[in-house]
Amino acid sequence: MSDELASFTLAPGFAALATACGLKKNGALDLALVTSATPCSAAGVFTTNRVKAAPVLYDQAVLQRNPAGIRAVIVNAGNANACTGPRGMDDCRATAALTAERLGCDSDAVLVLSTGVIGRQLDMARLSAGVLALTTTPSAAQPGAGAAARAIMTTDTRPKVVNHQVALAGGQVTIAGMCKGAGMIHPTMATMLAIVTTDAVIAPALLDRALRHAADRSFNRISVDGDTSTNDTLLLLASGSSGVVIGDAELAAFSEALSTTCIALAQQVARDGEGATRLIEVRVTGAADAAEAHQVANAIARSPLFKTAVHGGDPNWGRVLCAAGYSGAEIDPATLALSFGVGAHQIALVAGGLPLEADLAAASRLLRQDPVIVTLDLGRGGAATTVWTCDFSKEYVEINAHYTT
Amino acid sequence: MSDELASFTLAPGFAALATACGLKKNGALDLALVTSATPCSAAGVFTTNRVKAAPVLYDQAVLQRNPAGIRAVIVNAGNANACTGPRGMDDCRATAALTAERLGCDSDAVLVLSTGVIGRQLDMARLSAGVLALTTTPSAAQPGAGAAARAIMTTDTRPKVVNHQVALAGGQVTIAGMCKGAGMIHPTMATMLAIVTTDAVIAPALLDRALRHAADRSFNRISVDGDTSTNDTLLLLASGSSGVVIGDAELAAFSEALSTTCIALAQQVARDGEGATRLIEVRVTGAADAAEAHQVANAIARSPLFKTAVHGGDPNWGRVLCAAGYSGAEIDPATLALSFGVGAHQIALVAGGLPLEADLAAASRLLRQDPVIVTLDLGRGGAATTVWTCDFSKEYVEINAHYTT
Repeated sequence: MSDELASFTLAPGFAALATACGLKKNGALDLALVTSATPCSAAGVFTTNRVKAAPVLYDQAVLQRNPAGIRAVIVNAGNANACTGPRGMDDCRATAALTAERLGCDSDAVLVLSTGVIGRQLDMARLSAGVLALTTTPSAAQPGAGAAARAIMTTDTRPKVVNHQVALAGGQVTIAGMCKGAGMIHPTMATMLAIVTTDAVIAPALLDRALRHAADRSFNRISVDGDTSTNDTLLLLASGSSGVVIGDAELAAFSEALSTTCIALAQQVARDGEGATRLIEVRVTGAADAAEAHQVANAIARSPLFKTAVHGGDPNWGRVLCAAGYSGAEIDPATLALSFGVGAHQIALVAGGLPLEADLAAASRLLRQDPVIVTLDLGRGGAATTVWTCDFSKEYVEINAHYTT
Repeated sequence: MSDELASFTLAPGFAALATACGLKKNGALDLALVTSATPCSAAGVFTTNRVKAAPVLYDQAVLQRNPAGIRAVIVNAGNANACTGPRGMDDCRATAALTAERLGCDSDAVLVLSTGVIGRQLDMARLSAGVLALTTTPSAAQPGAGAAARAIMTTDTRPKVVNHQVALAGGQVTIAGMCKGAGMIHPTMATMLAIVTTDAVIAPALLDRALRHAADRSFNRISVDGDTSTNDTLLLLASGSSGVVIGDAELAAFSEALSTTCIALAQQVARDGEGATRLIEVRVTGAADAAEAHQVANAIARSPLFKTAVHGGDPNWGRVLCAAGYSGAEIDPATLALSFGVGAHQIALVAGGLPLEADLAAASRLLRQDPVIVTLDLGRGGAATTVWTCDFSKEYVEINAHYTT
């Protein structure tokens, strides 16, 4: 484990550990437990997919019933518990009940997350043994949030963690989280699990508002492949152990700080997209309104042709304009301006919808840097947005052609 | 050239030939001319992309002015003449004028098509020399519609041609066409050029209705990569040389016959998707209405995760349900039924939203056949649709990572 990961912690008041219970074929860590010493305020943002995995439906109901009393989150990788019907829901309930019994808390104080293959029933014998290992056999578990961040990975090549210290409301607050996600990533949301913790004192209703604000600015702005999964979940738990109270007056500042944390995690997801070698930041400016800006930016971020061109360092900028053209936004080709890069290294490629004489070799070099920054000005108004994606490589195909076999 | 291609002809009354004028780097055929001995009724369906190539805008205007007097179509590959501003339009005009002068017809009797790289001005010296070769130097040109079908290819691995004989209105009618398209293929429409000819006698207004009907059932139902190009054009020319008159009473039968021809061409496009190894037919049944059926079918056909799984023969059917779930249609997971294959070889994988005990090795074999047939029943109503796509391979990335370099 890297030093950074070994020293990674969640917010004060939280602990985490992980074990390998055999849900991943390769014997890697696949079950993580996050606990809080005290009951937490909690909020969640979940997949918009109509086909929702059992743990998504289960957690939505728990958060409805018990938004101020969450004590633990149990997370497995290797099996998504999606398309598993009533038995999948029973398995969520049993997992929460066993975890709660061992922790000595109420069953409704435990949230359950799953990620992995769709359409297979959970191996509850293995999962239950894993829960016992995490709660009763310290020697069978690896302590630490770093281990938990590794356990929730599927096709991720590296764990994704962030720990931010923020001065808020006259005190010091920690916002720290981990997430996983590499394929099936698209607004809204990604195939993604994220658990963000804070030690702020904040009521569930405010936590929910802050989380939706942050999700819109982070996880809802990344695309790897345009697929939206059955399991996407972003959880936010607030332990209150800092004693710093976030009320209505402090909510905007808290939301901004939370957005910063979530953006950092979301960028890690986009950069680690399946097969990806670098992060692409798509900036759309000069849009008539925010919806138009997003429409255009998402079309560009989703275009396989654009993303393969970036992968090859091919300054084939026509594909950016083409994607903007089919985005559905009512753009005017004659007012488009396109550039690669920023600041002193920015190269303008198109102005007034027409090609400029540009140094294409230098443009190609900009496409090989990390991050790649592409800015398209629509020339229609004052709205702007930024979304993140990754380049598209052969390895994406390699990874996904044999995922279950 | 294969025997089939060597013997391919357009409808009676049409001739075609091709030459290499240097727009393709590799010296291959890149300029095709289709001519009619008599003025034709003509109709066109064009890209919905807001960024339209110059020839798209040019042809739309010509068809408006002169829908019953078309004599020729000049088509270049290697350069899309898109994002080329006023100079691009001037180049269309000059190309049509030169072709018309050489053929001894009016400039407005000539349509112009281009396909290739976006954002570069046409090399008019080469293109003009090519037009002269096609019209005045038989030795510099290859005769035949087969040569023309090869000349319009870009990343296509093979020409796409169809010649159908149909009994209609008490006579015999030919509907024959060629098209190109491999990447940037998505409804509506594909990165695609198609020229369909018939010897029926039919007025432009009826031709237009028949063409829209056929396009909705063929080219608007294929997806390779979700990108919609700047140049998509489907042209239909009717020479009238059969003497068989298609009026209002015969229009439905003509439209169906035209649809059959267009579906055959569209399937060839999907099967030859960039890097593709086989055709995938996605059937959605039991939908509440046609719009819902299309919404679900297109989401599946566009999913890179589904298409890479097919490529690898991985019966990872959860990805089909997942794509249906995020399609935007209000499906109910509990009423979904999924199968691979048809007839005696059909394998049911999901019923009532739940996994069935299925022979996954046999399901994997079905995914390795051509075509792959996937049927998702939504269990909501009586509407159905079929769309076509292809598997997604590493070669797609290879082709598109270095397209302009």
